[in-house]
Amino acid sequence: MLTNDLLLRALLRQRVDRTPVWMMRQAGRYLPEYRATRARAGSFLKLCMTPELACEVTLQPLARYPLDAAILFSDILTIPHALGLGLQFETGEGPRIERPVRSLAEVQRLGVPDPEVELRYVMDAVRLIRRELNGRVPLIGFAGSPWTVATYIVEGGSSREFSTIKRMLYEEEHTLHALLELLANSTREYLNAQIASGAQAIMIFDTWGGILTPGQYRTFSLNYMSRILQGLKRENDGRRVPIILFTKGGGAWLRSMCETGCDALGIDWTTDLGDARRAVNDQVALQGNLDPNCLYASPARIREEVARVLESYGPGHGHVFNLGHGIHPAIAPEHAGAMIAAVHELSPKYHRKEGDRG
Amino acid sequence: MLTNDLLLRALLRQRVDRTPVWMMRQAGRYLPEYRATRARAGSFLKLCMTPELACEVTLQPLARYPLDAAILFSDILTIPHALGLGLQFETGEGPRIERPVRSLAEVQRLGVPDPEVELRYVMDAVRLIRRELNGRVPLIGFAGSPWTVATYIVEGGSSREFSTIKRMLYEEEHTLHALLELLANSTREYLNAQIASGAQAIMIFDTWGGILTPGQYRTFSLNYMSRILQGLKRENDGRRVPIILFTKGGGAWLRSMCETGCDALGIDWTTDLGDARRAVNDQVALQGNLDPNCLYASPARIREEVARVLESYGPGHGHVFNLGHGIHPAIAPEHAGAMIAAVHELSPKYHRKEGDRG
Repeated sequence: MLTNDLLLRALLRQRVDRTPVWMMRQAGRYLPEYRATRARAGSFLKLCMTPELACEVTLQPLARYPLDAAILFSDILTIPHALGLGLQFETGEGPRIERPVRSLAEVQRLGVPDPEVELRYVMDAVRLIRRELNGRVPLIGFAGSPWTVATYIVEGGSSREFSTIKRMLYEEEHTLHALLELLANSTREYLNAQIASGAQAIMIFDTWGGILTPGQYRTFSLNYMSRILQGLKRENDGRRVPIILFTKGGGAWLRSMCETGCDALGIDWTTDLGDARRAVNDQVALQGNLDPNCLYASPARIREEVARVLESYGPGHGHVFNLGHGIHPAIAPEHAGAMIAAVHELSPKYHRKEGDRG
Repeated sequence: MLTNDLLLRALLRQRVDRTPVWMMRQAGRYLPEYRATRARAGSFLKLCMTPELACEVTLQPLARYPLDAAILFSDILTIPHALGLGLQFETGEGPRIERPVRSLAEVQRLGVPDPEVELRYVMDAVRLIRRELNGRVPLIGFAGSPWTVATYIVEGGSSREFSTIKRMLYEEEHTLHALLELLANSTREYLNAQIASGAQAIMIFDTWGGILTPGQYRTFSLNYMSRILQGLKRENDGRRVPIILFTKGGGAWLRSMCETGCDALGIDWTTDLGDARRAVNDQVALQGNLDPNCLYASPARIREEVARVLESYGPGHGHVFNLGHGIHPAIAPEHAGAMIAAVHELSPKYHRKEGDRG
């Protein structure tokens, strides 16, 4: 049913004839067509919550570039919004949670949202995007990790120091565990509903796992991602739905991340892809890991860095090309195009059959 | 000459009977006496540039706590200031460089500052602090790494994305190398002057090395720290002056950091101290690594975490207890005291002679 299934094959370490490529935040502010739709929507939240508009921006990068995947346009804070915590996006300020959760009593008041009720707009977007994609490329669904979403819920928004949630971690561990369990259950339901609605791969974004000590990471982040994974129905249209885990700054913890049973790991730019591949011993696929700042450079320089990333992974399947984090809003769209073109041009040689290799 | 030389002995992996302890930013805003002196000075820069006041705040934490080291009160941006680039500290905004450096011509206009002229106020502070310390504990001098200082000089201040310097890295590598070389030469002269003025140990703060790819880290950060190290006169009063390198987020690069010939490595809280010790194979001492956010917890909880950090390093010398990064301004002074007391209480058992161990 899929015209291009390179992404799904690479995530399962199956044979591909070139490295598939997509970009985190590919539907985003660097595209003038996105900014136009965003202006029409009136607010970021309105854009997320209107399935027709979310679908429109999801498809925009695919109209411009030969990408191998679409990713649902949404936000990792849809769950706090569905929990009734009051989500606001203030211009230049980042997200704000109006009613932060800081006590056990506050956690106990919360219930797992019904994805087809409070998060219906996401499921409608997934169904609409699948229909509009019409099998061209797979659709990736996603959610934030419980730990990462909890940082916003407890801090009341973005943070630099994460002092409030860290204080909870040290002083009120059971409150934090109760919140993380609620978020893990909510996220499992949410992702299963995305899969049932048509998501063909899933990515879990653990943006803030990297601020933890190794022991805290296992207890408060990895543990809950692992529980989600164990509860996911990993099939859609008779095909396996691969799961990608991405902990930014988690380069030291790749082996333990594998043990969750995920299919692939996202790798930021601070870890060498060859080292990461050796660390996981080809047990899972790897996605990444071009420095997002590299896209400020000239197309010729971008091509060199794409070559370096491909070479660091080396011959063999199981690599999905991506940035090491989301594309910056100030990147020129032609520079993203240069990256994608370079992957198309330079990656086939890493996928030739043994006998073919020059 | 030193009443307490635990720090110097531990940094050289010599025998000590308990683990020495100090805190990054121990002379800082969490102390009411610091805030009083800072208010008297009128500005942060004035405080740094007035030797009597810099000496006063350097000594404040020693009057309060049984610390094993003093660290010069200063800033990593004294060199850009000495280069005439215009340094401002705006309240709540962080540092600002008025004349950022972004072209080769701009780099070539700069000359290595004479530490006894443009940075005389620092040397006067070092001499005054040594006199006032009168051998109680050693004095640590410091500087920022060339890469870290360059991020401020090129970006024009603090940054989240580091896009301007990354663009330079990708597009104008020779400009960046010229700037880093100037900074390495300036820093070598600066640190040698600190040693000549009385600094008994040196720490190089590479706060932003961790935002680089592994290859970029070697080329643009480690390489220049290594050059500085090779040019340092590592002796004072007939004793070796140990050098500590600290790359925040550099947990994956500890082995290559050892190869610079430094004596010790700073370890942030995202790396387990036992893993770090195994990685460097006891070639160097380790300094760290309590999560600075832990000091928001209760004294009892702080004691538990101190115990965990001591246990993760394990028996044997070569550990200097510290936070994994600077102490936060909102920490209650009694909580810092609880940490220091716990190190005094709990660390001796890790230093007993073989036969003594219980």
